Amino acid sequence: MPVWIDGRPADTLPVSDRGLAYGDGLFETIAVRQGRIALLERHMQRLAEGARRLVLPLDLALVRSELLAFAGELRQGVAKLIVTRGDGQRGYAPPVDARCRRILSGGPVPAYPPRHRLDGIRLFPCATRLAEQPLLAGLKHLNRLEQVLARSEWQDPACAEGLMRDHNGRPIEGVFSNLFLVRDGELLTPALTRCGVAGVMRAEILERAVAAGVACRVVDLDYADLLAADEVFLCNSQYGIWPVVAFETHVWPVGGLTRKLQLMLTDLVDV
Amino acid sequence: MPVWIDGRPADTLPVSDRGLAYGDGLFETIAVRQGRIALLERHMQRLAEGARRLVLPLDLALVRSELLAFAGELRQGVAKLIVTRGDGQRGYAPPVDARCRRILSGGPVPAYPPRHRLDGIRLFPCATRLAEQPLLAGLKHLNRLEQVLARSEWQDPACAEGLMRDHNGRPIEGVFSNLFLVRDGELLTPALTRCGVAGVMRAEILERAVAAGVACRVVDLDYADLLAADEVFLCNSQYGIWPVVAFETHVWPVGGLTRKLQLMLTDLVDV
Repeated sequence: MPVWIDGRPADTLPVSDRGLAYGDGLFETIAVRQGRIALLERHMQRLAEGARRLVLPLDLALVRSELLAFAGELRQGVAKLIVTRGDGQRGYAPPVDARCRRILSGGPVPAYPPRHRLDGIRLFPCATRLAEQPLLAGLKHLNRLEQVLARSEWQDPACAEGLMRDHNGRPIEGVFSNLFLVRDGELLTPALTRCGVAGVMRAEILERAVAAGVACRVVDLDYADLLAADEVFLCNSQYGIWPVVAFETHVWPVGGLTRKLQLMLTDLVDV
Repeated sequence: MPVWIDGRPADTLPVSDRGLAYGDGLFETIAVRQGRIALLERHMQRLAEGARRLVLPLDLALVRSELLAFAGELRQGVAKLIVTRGDGQRGYAPPVDARCRRILSGGPVPAYPPRHRLDGIRLFPCATRLAEQPLLAGLKHLNRLEQVLARSEWQDPACAEGLMRDHNGRPIEGVFSNLFLVRDGELLTPALTRCGVAGVMRAEILERAVAAGVACRVVDLDYADLLAADEVFLCNSQYGIWPVVAFETHVWPVGGLTRKLQLMLTDLVDV
């Protein structure tokens, strides 16, 4: 599988990289099929927003051209892009002459069992809560210890994903997915202004659902809203949509809107 | 300056390292003088606590022996130790066969102006607030974007450090220091159970102050407590103690207890 650093084949980086020292950077996990990049513009948009908020001097046109060339070489699989603030001396202060490092590594298409999208999944109740940090909320940055801790909580393969809540108990997202509920025909997904990662598939689903005439709202959801939902599903850029059918003692059917949205995404993900 | 990875000279690491991907690891910044390590046991204790809480399979005896050998080579300066969960495949789940990577890099003795410890410093009021995450509080882990953002807030060299508060406005620490107040002869430092880094110098100061008969308390402090303090100072493992003499419109004298504590640390830091 190919690995490129700053546009050239290479698979090691200096220990002085600030991505290692402080998690000072961003990443994107990108589906590549037949050499084409799914949701390219959304990945680029999120990267641009992250670079803006972290004040990373990232050459977005260069990132895009490297990504397109990399996808051409990879053909089929996952392209993981990491951008960091590059090398630094000791100390948190960003170097005034920072030069971002761009790391692209290829992997195979994730081998998720088809039953996850067909029959739905069981969701594990993570005890790890998401801290509230509005300055970082929504970004796919490299500070991901909360997700590491949350994913460490269960080994049982019967649970394909875990629910993460904030310190007030509000459901926010899966460990590597975004969360949607359906209630009275309306599509709801948690606001990600205090914590969470604003996924590209979440944005795509919202846009397509609105275009299809589905009422959508991005709101603060309570735990009770989750339990009372008519349908629950998770999404990410690799697997599309997984219906959630079980969570602790709660069960949900695979709902009609969930199925319709799955069908509306078949151009993006393998079904 | 020497750089070692896993005990051998090397200065690059694989892009698959989980320290880069997720900040999945810990670090220590260690003062080395005449080949000796200041506060070695405290650094090892914090590392052990971090490894325990992050469930890192770290060989602490090996870390200690590498650190001692590295200090012997470095002789004088700062040894930065980074330990990560090592290489991983895509996904947050820690590999069951994780092998921690140990990275040691040497730097010169930090060139802080002597006036910082002699005359005291001005403290910048950072707008970046610390998020509350009890699972990570106190640890010196690699998720440090909050410190990067906070340190980016000021360039004025008149401010040597910045104050970080939590989302409730409570003063917690400096960007790269711990915070102490003196009030009515009592030494107070913020509790670090929800956020903050429990510094080795902070622990050393508390122990020596108690041994010297000073009343000490680790407590939740309000912003008003800071402003009403008789003395304010910062500490870390490299510079020892810096009196704080100015913060916004507030001024403090360099206090008597601050001076006494500075003198009690002359065996640890260059004065």
